Amino acid sequence: MRVGVWLVGARGSVATTVVVGAAAIRSGLMPPVGCVTETPDFAGAELPPLDALVFGGHDIADVPLVKRAEKLARDGVVPPLLPAAVTGELDEAEGEIREGLGGGSDAGTLRERADRLIGDLVSFRDRRELDRVVVINVASTEPPFERRPEHAGLEALERAMAEPGEVLPASSVYAYAALRAGCPYIDFTPSTGARLPALDELARRMGVPYGGSDAKTGETLVKTALAPMFAARALAVRSWSGTNLLGGGDGATLADPAAGESKKVSKDRALSEILDRRVEGQTHIDYVPHMGEWKTAWDHVMFEGFLGVRMTLQFTWQGCDSALAAPLVLDLARLTARAHQAGRFGPLPELGFFFKDPIGSSEHRLTAQYELLRAWAVELGAGA
Amino acid sequence: MRVGVWLVGARGSVATTVVVGAAAIRSGLMPPVGCVTETPDFAGAELPPLDALVFGGHDIADVPLVKRAEKLARDGVVPPLLPAAVTGELDEAEGEIREGLGGGSDAGTLRERADRLIGDLVSFRDRRELDRVVVINVASTEPPFERRPEHAGLEALERAMAEPGEVLPASSVYAYAALRAGCPYIDFTPSTGARLPALDELARRMGVPYGGSDAKTGETLVKTALAPMFAARALAVRSWSGTNLLGGGDGATLADPAAGESKKVSKDRALSEILDRRVEGQTHIDYVPHMGEWKTAWDHVMFEGFLGVRMTLQFTWQGCDSALAAPLVLDLARLTARAHQAGRFGPLPELGFFFKDPIGSSEHRLTAQYELLRAWAVELGAGA
Amino acid sequence: MRVGVWLVGARGSVATTVVVGAAAIRSGLMPPVGCVTETPDFAGAELPPLDALVFGGHDIADVPLVKRAEKLARDGVVPPLLPAAVTGELDEAEGEIREGLGGGSDAGTLRERADRLIGDLVSFRDRRELDRVVVINVASTEPPFERRPEHAGLEALERAMAEPGEVLPASSVYAYAALRAGCPYIDFTPSTGARLPALDELARRMGVPYGGSDAKTGETLVKTALAPMFAARALAVRSWSGTNLLGGGDGATLADPAAGESKKVSKDRALSEILDRRVEGQTHIDYVPHMGEWKTAWDHVMFEGFLGVRMTLQFTWQGCDSALAAPLVLDLARLTARAHQAGRFGPLPELGFFFKDPIGSSEHRLTAQYELLRAWAVELGAGA
Amino acid sequence: MRVGVWLVGARGSVATTVVVGAAAIRSGLMPPVGCVTETPDFAGAELPPLDALVFGGHDIADVPLVKRAEKLARDGVVPPLLPAAVTGELDEAEGEIREGLGGGSDAGTLRERADRLIGDLVSFRDRRELDRVVVINVASTEPPFERRPEHAGLEALERAMAEPGEVLPASSVYAYAALRAGCPYIDFTPSTGARLPALDELARRMGVPYGGSDAKTGETLVKTALAPMFAARALAVRSWSGTNLLGGGDGATLADPAAGESKKVSKDRALSEILDRRVEGQTHIDYVPHMGEWKTAWDHVMFEGFLGVRMTLQFTWQGCDSALAAPLVLDLARLTARAHQAGRFGPLPELGFFFKDPIGSSEHRLTAQYELLRAWAVELGAGA
Ligand SMILES: NC(=O)c1ccc[n+]([C@@H]2O[C@H](COP(=O)([O-])OP(=O)(O)OC[C@H]3O[C@@H](n4cnc5c(N)ncnc54)[C@H](O)[C@@H]3O)[C@@H](O)[C@H]2O)c1
Ligand SMILES: NC(=O)c1ccc[n+]([C@@H]2O[C@H](COP(=O)([O-])OP(=O)(O)OC[C@H]3O[C@@H](n4cnc5c(N)ncnc54)[C@H](O)[C@@H]3O)[C@@H](O)[C@H]2O)c1
Ligand SMILES: NC(=O)c1ccc[n+]([C@@H]2O[C@H](COP(=O)([O-])OP(=O)(O)OC[C@H]3O[C@@H](n4cnc5c(N)ncnc54)[C@H](O)[C@@H]3O)[C@@H](O)[C@H]2O)c1
Ligand SMILES: NC(=O)c1ccc[n+]([C@@H]2O[C@H](COP(=O)([O-])OP(=O)(O)OC[C@H]3O[C@@H](n4cnc5c(N)ncnc54)[C@H](O)[C@@H]3O)[C@@H](O)[C@H]2O)c1
Ligand code: NA
Ligand code: NA
Repeated sequence: MRVGVWLVGARGSVATTVVVGAAAIRSGLMPPVGCVTETPDFAGAELPPLDALVFGGHDIADVPLVKRAEKLARDGVVPPLLPAAVTGELDEAEGEIREGLGGGSDAGTLRERADRLIGDLVSFRDRRELDRVVVINVASTEPPFERRPEHAGLEALERAMAEPGEVLPASSVYAYAALRAGCPYIDFTPSTGARLPALDELARRMGVPYGGSDAKTGETLVKTALAPMFAARALAVRSWSGTNLLGGGDGATLADPAAGESKKVSKDRALSEILDRRVEGQTHIDYVPHMGEWKTAWDHVMFEGFLGVRMTLQFTWQGCDSALAAPLVLDLARLTARAHQAGRFGPLPELGFFFKDPIGSSEHRLTAQYELLRAWAVELGAGA
Repeated sequence: MRVGVWLVGARGSVATTVVVGAAAIRSGLMPPVGCVTETPDFAGAELPPLDALVFGGHDIADVPLVKRAEKLARDGVVPPLLPAAVTGELDEAEGEIREGLGGGSDAGTLRERADRLIGDLVSFRDRRELDRVVVINVASTEPPFERRPEHAGLEALERAMAEPGEVLPASSVYAYAALRAGCPYIDFTPSTGARLPALDELARRMGVPYGGSDAKTGETLVKTALAPMFAARALAVRSWSGTNLLGGGDGATLADPAAGESKKVSKDRALSEILDRRVEGQTHIDYVPHMGEWKTAWDHVMFEGFLGVRMTLQFTWQGCDSALAAPLVLDLARLTARAHQAGRFGPLPELGFFFKDPIGSSEHRLTAQYELLRAWAVELGAGA
Repeated sequence: MRVGVWLVGARGSVATTVVVGAAAIRSGLMPPVGCVTETPDFAGAELPPLDALVFGGHDIADVPLVKRAEKLARDGVVPPLLPAAVTGELDEAEGEIREGLGGGSDAGTLRERADRLIGDLVSFRDRRELDRVVVINVASTEPPFERRPEHAGLEALERAMAEPGEVLPASSVYAYAALRAGCPYIDFTPSTGARLPALDELARRMGVPYGGSDAKTGETLVKTALAPMFAARALAVRSWSGTNLLGGGDGATLADPAAGESKKVSKDRALSEILDRRVEGQTHIDYVPHMGEWKTAWDHVMFEGFLGVRMTLQFTWQGCDSALAAPLVLDLARLTARAHQAGRFGPLPELGFFFKDPIGSSEHRLTAQYELLRAWAVELGAGA
Repeated sequence: MRVGVWLVGARGSVATTVVVGAAAIRSGLMPPVGCVTETPDFAGAELPPLDALVFGGHDIADVPLVKRAEKLARDGVVPPLLPAAVTGELDEAEGEIREGLGGGSDAGTLRERADRLIGDLVSFRDRRELDRVVVINVASTEPPFERRPEHAGLEALERAMAEPGEVLPASSVYAYAALRAGCPYIDFTPSTGARLPALDELARRMGVPYGGSDAKTGETLVKTALAPMFAARALAVRSWSGTNLLGGGDGATLADPAAGESKKVSKDRALSEILDRRVEGQTHIDYVPHMGEWKTAWDHVMFEGFLGVRMTLQFTWQGCDSALAAPLVLDLARLTARAHQAGRFGPLPELGFFFKDPIGSSEHRLTAQYELLRAWAVELGAGA
């Protein structure tokens, strides 16, 4: 099986790290650390090998992928000499990047724009002789987009898309185009993407799976590993406060309060679901440009134990966001391609392990999510 | 079912908090926060109610339980006014405390001393009309005790116990006495206790269960909640360093390097089992008298992600040890009594959730341990 | 010299801790830990002894001081048995509390209201035969109050105060009344207080000193101790981010974004003055009711060293605010009384050591501030 | 003034960073961040400019400086492309490195070996036409060396050095050689170096200054910035615990408990001198090879405030040791050369700001040390 990985936001940090990393692993320069699907638990799942992945995507920036990779090397995200060692693969991916939405040439109705995107996807699949293409949204987070009546059903939506006006945010137009083209769609960001009844309808009608949203790579990852500990020990969490310091392109986007808000909401949900109660405390996302590609999260948890004694747990997470995100993009591409091959369509709740706001699931506990994923891998292997 | 809870180390912080807390919960003064067996997952396990527990124990100190409770109140372990509110229960437990081993009146062979302990247990069970007595060792941690050939089988052991000399450490004499008297034995400490082939033989012969060891209440609790996260995400932990600052009676004991050593060993095992590799880093246990009943642990984890990027997670845990330990003593008493009633004997690996060094199990991952415990609770309920 | 200490906000946490603590130290129950003026550096400054202080104040709450003290004991701010041991002193202070501004009986013009306050101060000074009364504002922080043309000169201000309308916030009416009554005024809070040209004019005319503002007891204290280290070592601080979690009455007030804002401003100034540049990073103040009387601050500093290498310093401060504040109130009362006695009037920049936003000084470095204070103590002693 | 900087341990991390960094700053590639003597406070001190420094040294390793610099670049201590940009300067320094003591060719008495070292220094000074050469010990830390009677006076020492046997550790032979050759000597490490009465005698006789020891670049730097805060506020520090995680060549050396011990002692002294009391708590130095050139220190301070309330301050310092050390080597070279030129001899207590264990001074408070240094700079300027 040859699998296309179509990255919306193909010139971003995450996307570039994906392309560089896949090349480095394929050529044996680096081990696949961070790739969940390379561990023994997934050996039998009949996933497409990393070798089988072919990269392309949409973006609205025009800095060449090689330049982006060199910048990531300067920032310590990828080893200094790696970009030079994989220029072949970078050039190959560069050749498959097309202009995205919002890049200046956005004339026409949404339907017309979607048709252009569909054209890009179909051409990629055909030219590169791919069995399937998984579209993964790793573009900048959008501000929250208000729900509209037209989102409720496919017919109404397509009618509105054929009129002038912006009935959908870009992420949802990308999702629409992917599904219409028969491509599975994964939202790595908290943007709206496929999470609309009309698009769910489309996915089912086209027989393609989709999943998301908002990859869990830092504070929330640790949170959902730790919160079950308090629950299992019957300790009463009273407050959970967090501060996230982040730089990078993503930091700048989230500095826009509206976009930040959509991130915070998906962060907070997990906690109250796991602890089965509302706890005090806020979550801050601060843009600190000097942090560059690095993120620091400090969390403070106050809990009560036996006889009301108050205790605290604090943690500091210092991570490189793109390094945490990139291997998950590879995992998601492989798993989703396999699910598609196996005939799955509609939401993929088994992917909840990867997301802060898992589509189709209210399970947020990390270990429980991992067990669901692992069990699914067994199923996928059995069904091969 | 009326259950006796016989605490070896009955005048210690943990034991005193157990007695005060059980009384406070029974009388509705405090909610059962921290009691795992009071959560819905255990509602059907047919456990003896907290009301059914009757306390007694051995100790070699002679500070009255009421005084100890008042000191705990001054140190913030129990609410200021609580000791006065439960003097009745404290006096009742006081009346059931007998002199332990090493308290000065240790004449005779180990066998003779064990017989005295057995007498105390049997008398307690008879006088108080108890269905069973669970012995729980919450005495000061002993220095590691070297293995001897006599530990290999019960016959050889009993022969040696009948001679002069110290073939067993105190914790194992207590375990011997408990098992001989038909009482389940739980080791809350890292001391040798029942972990000898000869005592396992005795337990099986007498048809009584036992379990342990070394309750997991702080750094290791967090460690075993967090380490599976790295494993599940295929992140390569390179070092895990920890420093524990503790005061209290327990701190003083562990300041003795030999005793501290036995604690460190049980702490380190968990990590390498979960991560399936040896990682760099040391664990320190520092005695800081001014910490009083409080413990602070700082852990620093360095891990590598995608393309070798180095990241860190740090946590600081600030806990009140006795407040964390006491509800687990109640949980262990109830679960073990029920297991005994249900006909279980020999080691109880299902209790691994509570321990740093689980007898009969090499599962250290907190969530997996919890799932085993929960499943067992269902079984215990079904078998009722 | 007999000195009255008139606390605006006399029933608050800080004020109550002041009264309880002064009594405990006087009676030898507790050592004067935290009292700067009790250290050898101040032995020769001819300060009024702690014994010479007599307490009274304004408040608009009516919970009795004894009740407030008992609550503080339950919250761990004062030792459990202390309130009972000093009921005499608490009752004495209780007898000297008068209704403050905003308590419901605020009829009349500001001038009339100020006259009532002046009456309270004069009566206190006369009845208790005090040489002088120092007024210290430890009331809830006010929202920022906009500057008005009338604030520029005393005459215009008094004219406006004689008309209906609120030309001043309460803290400034208290400051006005104090100065008019010939009492030195200290603002322990970030409220406007005496920081208006018209009130400065009044202070000079009346020959009384004043000082403030916003006591430095936590995050900013540590910040101003640490920031000079970076400056002295020529390390380039790039970002300084902070999150403050606080409960208590004060937390609730600061949860009001407007009041919080006035606190943040005084917090931020220090850093840019010490580092001589603007650094990235925000400061958050979160209200977390379960923190009670405790405050936790986490600060993250990123700096560059030789050849651009990035490094970080993080700190976590866990303090009990009232315990940190109360001894400083005693210090300020003693120093200000002595300054008044020595003939000082107008702003007292030498008190900068105690404040986040020191009146009359732009020196924020803690050690430099301490040296100024110490030198002043020598002067005060010499001038005696 | 042309100044030679002779680095004992010339192929180590610190030394290599010094040579790379001096070249980078000289050529304008990097700003002099971290160089104290480049700040305005030192502009008038008539220090030799960075341009005037010429590098050489002793080492017993043979990895070329260029290779060492490339490794430092890979480890993130110096920017990736910098070593290539300064190969000229690296080669120049490479040409001035001579074999040190303990490198295999150590035949003869200590006096004979010292003569060889003296020859190297004199040759360097003559060939390169230097006004003076400052010798700075940045070699691996030695294990503590026991005091001997011969250390008490120069005559006895020289007599013993002329006999077979090792009456001095290597660092002291280097110090002896430096002083004998008329070169000032600075000990950047905790090794014995010049701290012997006999060597003090020699320094005075030769009219050369010396200083040290053990550069203050991490945990102790922060400690001596923070501890005065507690003292100034009359807060009673009860415990101060620290854990240092370090990799690198230095970490490996300090893993040897004997060498680590000499480091710990110099670390602990500061605290008790500043706080004027012994506090509880230990300091750990752990070797964690994966930390590479990075060091993390976690410190936990428990203190009591008013009425005995217990509070804590914790900090985590994450630094790159060589980046912190290298600019100080440049500062020390310039200041010491200037002191020599100005006729100073014997110990230089004014350099205490740079050291954990300042020779000739018991002042450990960072700010006070800085003020002494700054005042000295003024003096040095005035005396020019
Ligand atoms: N890195 C993580 O750990 C992580 C975790 C969860 C979610 N995410 C999300 O992944 C996304 C990518 O992160 P990043 O660090 O790579 O950000 P980035 O800013 O480096 O890259 C985003 C890219 O998207 C492009 N883009 C913006 N709008 C577009 C559009 N309409 N169409 C096509 N391309 C568009 C930009 O030009 C840019 O190249 C963000 O939304 C982020 O929130 C990242
Ligand atoms: N508190 C926790 O979170 C925790 C966790 C794991 C293990 N533990 C273990 O629990 C034990 C109790 O802790 P603690 O804080 O109550 O200590 P503690 O020092 O307050 O109490 C120990 C008691 O044991 C008694 N004792 C000592 N030797 C004895 C003997 N030979 N026979 C009978 N009694 C004896 C002492 O007199 C004392 O009263 C320790 O071994 C500790 O390591 C505690
Ligand atoms: N505790 C610290 O470390 C610290 C540091 C700096 C500043 N402060 C400031 O000190 C003040 C007191 O803090 P607290 O913790 O005692 O708060 P608190 O809420 O416990 O007490 C404030 C008191 O002020 C009274 N009050 C409110 N408005 C009043 C008015 N108009 N006239 C008279 N009384 C009035 C309230 O009734 C209350 O009794 C706050 O403004 C706080 O920001 C405290
Ligand atoms: N980096 C800091 O922040 C810092 C702070 C205080 C002290 N120090 C001290 O500075 C010294 C150097 O640190 P580093 O990180 O560069 O260590 P390093 O291990 O990288 O370098 C030490 C060098 O000394 C050489 N050496 C060993 N024995 C020698 C001898 N007898 N004669 C000559 N050369 C010898 C080694 O071959 C090596 O090249 C250490 O003693 C360290 O403790 C460093
Ligand atoms: Na950190
Ligand atoms: Na903490």
